[in-house]
Amino acid sequence: SKSYNITLLPGDGIGPEVISVAKNALQLVASIEGFEVAFEEMPMGGAALDAVGVPLPAETLNSAKKSDATLLGAIGGYKWDKNEKHLKPETGLLQLREGLQVFANLRPTTVLPQLVDASTLKKEVAEGVDLMVVRELTGGIYFGKPRGFGTNENGQEIGFNTEVYAAYEIDRIARIAFETARKRRGKLCSVDKANVLEASMLWRKIVTALASEYPDVELSHMYVDNAAMQLVRNPKQFDTIVTNNIFGDILSDEASMITGSIGMLPSASLGAAGPGLFEPIHGSAPDIAGQDKANPLATMLSAAMLLKYGLGEEKAAQRIEAAVLDTLNRGFRTGDIHSAGHKLVGCKEMGEEVLKSI
Amino acid sequence: SKSYNITLLPGDGIGPEVISVAKNALQLVASIEGFEVAFEEMPMGGAALDAVGVPLPAETLNSAKKSDATLLGAIGGYKWDKNEKHLKPETGLLQLREGLQVFANLRPTTVLPQLVDASTLKKEVAEGVDLMVVRELTGGIYFGKPRGFGTNENGQEIGFNTEVYAAYEIDRIARIAFETARKRRGKLCSVDKANVLEASMLWRKIVTALASEYPDVELSHMYVDNAAMQLVRNPKQFDTIVTNNIFGDILSDEASMITGSIGMLPSASLGAAGPGLFEPIHGSAPDIAGQDKANPLATMLSAAMLLKYGLGEEKAAQRIEAAVLDTLNRGFRTGDIHSAGHKLVGCKEMGEEVLKSI
Ligand SMILES: CC(C)[C@H](C(=O)O)[C@@H](O)C(=O)O
Ligand SMILES: CC(C)[C@H](C(=O)O)[C@@H](O)C(=O)O
Repeated sequence: SKSYNITLLPGDGIGPEVISVAKNALQLVASIEGFEVAFEEMPMGGAALDAVGVPLPAETLNSAKKSDATLLGAIGGYKWDKNEKHLKPETGLLQLREGLQVFANLRPTTVLPQLVDASTLKKEVAEGVDLMVVRELTGGIYFGKPRGFGTNENGQEIGFNTEVYAAYEIDRIARIAFETARKRRGKLCSVDKANVLEASMLWRKIVTALASEYPDVELSHMYVDNAAMQLVRNPKQFDTIVTNNIFGDILSDEASMITGSIGMLPSASLGAAGPGLFEPIHGSAPDIAGQDKANPLATMLSAAMLLKYGLGEEKAAQRIEAAVLDTLNRGFRTGDIHSAGHKLVGCKEMGEEVLKSI
Repeated sequence: SKSYNITLLPGDGIGPEVISVAKNALQLVASIEGFEVAFEEMPMGGAALDAVGVPLPAETLNSAKKSDATLLGAIGGYKWDKNEKHLKPETGLLQLREGLQVFANLRPTTVLPQLVDASTLKKEVAEGVDLMVVRELTGGIYFGKPRGFGTNENGQEIGFNTEVYAAYEIDRIARIAFETARKRRGKLCSVDKANVLEASMLWRKIVTALASEYPDVELSHMYVDNAAMQLVRNPKQFDTIVTNNIFGDILSDEASMITGSIGMLPSASLGAAGPGLFEPIHGSAPDIAGQDKANPLATMLSAAMLLKYGLGEEKAAQRIEAAVLDTLNRGFRTGDIHSAGHKLVGCKEMGEEVLKSI
């Protein structure tokens, strides 16, 4: 029978709690669908800083590279917030993305009917929202050079970064976005700041040039400031959004908050070949770490994305997705999504209920 | 009696309609408060491109520089969207900001009790929102060099921009922000991406260093992706936000949409000395241009900011602000903010009603 190696990176804060729950779910659906999963748990982020002094140990990156897919919990915490850049947990995450060359970050935002009241948006605005942000993840201002500190011609201290995109980087992320849109509702909105930035002008040119290869996809363009508005005004207008690294960071977080339940939202980061990286979009929530209060469903759904996009085990993925919905339908809620009339449970119990549903 | 020169830049789309209405209001409050205003109307944006081939004619910039303050309507439109960069209306606006050295852009977002239903956010989330975004306006990635197009070491076409801040640029915008917060509720949130970008690390360092000079202001820091979420989750947590040019572009537009009525929101752009630039935050709305449908209240309130911040005529400013509220209380609404039970009026009639209220 087929067998997969999965690297688990519990990370910091609530990371270990949500990973342990998702691991059980992966194990269970594997046994039902008749394939094997072997896990390798590796340190990453603050945990790795504390253990070995770097946020991404070489062994961790190697494990992720050799495996069939990687599931990450969360990284970061107050403790390491003032660290120098190369000793920040976040730097480890960026190194992992770069090391795995996962340039395409898929972030679905779905308002579930069961949770529509969790949104701060009016019901008629929030209900039915179902969009996907395709964010470029290994380029742009996150990685562009030159970067650093220095002095300008007047001897003034400066800090600087470079927003840079090469045509091939735009082309490959745009193709993923067109293909994603094609499998969804066939609408792609490319977000840039082409009225000001040259990097965005090239972005728009390359995306536009691809449109003829995807005649079944309706392409539109929007400036990033307008997109930030439209996500609040009428998020239902969006199907698939494609954008650069920094705009994607901002807009995907804004979009996720439309659901009011970011404890529910997964993400997948994919490369041209090689293993993908899967993680919930929420952070490490140090304030509730170790208290069995975390919502493990975003990590469950990330495990489902891992099965689908990472291993091609679509049926197993659907089992997890269906079980998450069933568990919600049976009334179980963690604190972050709890409302009157529902059963308040902790991270572990929520995990067990999902296993029952599976 | 005192006399002021005001440059009017009607611009494109609905710009001329809203400027003509605001001009009348300025004239009226001046006569009541006993000062003189002389107007000079100059071409700008698409109108200037059509007339003289550049988006910001030298005469227009000179007029703005010599005047006591400038009131801008709106610029841009489909017609000029595909123009090369130096022939875009937007480029004219950036040249105007740079020419006037107005580095501090103040964008208040206030949810008026009269219009709380216009928000797509739930009433309990939107009501009482009263925040100010202080956006750096003449630095960062909008103006940073090097910028342009080229090829990388692999011969690939690239587009690039530079996000760069010098310490003095951060210092001067932060001071304006601290002082703004001091006059408001004493809370300042500085938004950056200091976990990734060196330009943001310097930003955070300089802002933090200033805090001791403003012990009465409570300073906090937030990452831009989190800020984009928090504006949707709980906008009331914010008093004053200070951020860089591009993050300010995105977040101030997102914040404005919380009100559901961007036809109501003004802005002021100020320098260290010299005349300021005042404009509504909405665009040129080419689809309704020339149809007497535009909401002139954002421009009215921009005229009020001009009186207050630009001329120091606080009383005259308050007259306009009070008149705008009174007109809303009397039930008049343009299409963008209209709801059942209110009187639907056009741009001109709304202007006349505000004059009556004054
Ligand atoms: C932690 C941080 C470096 C990261 C990013 O900015 O990409 C995070 O915000 C995310 O979106 O995954
Ligand atoms: C028109 C454009 C150049 C401008 C900007 O990005 O600054 C606008 O969006 C604004 O916010 O005033």
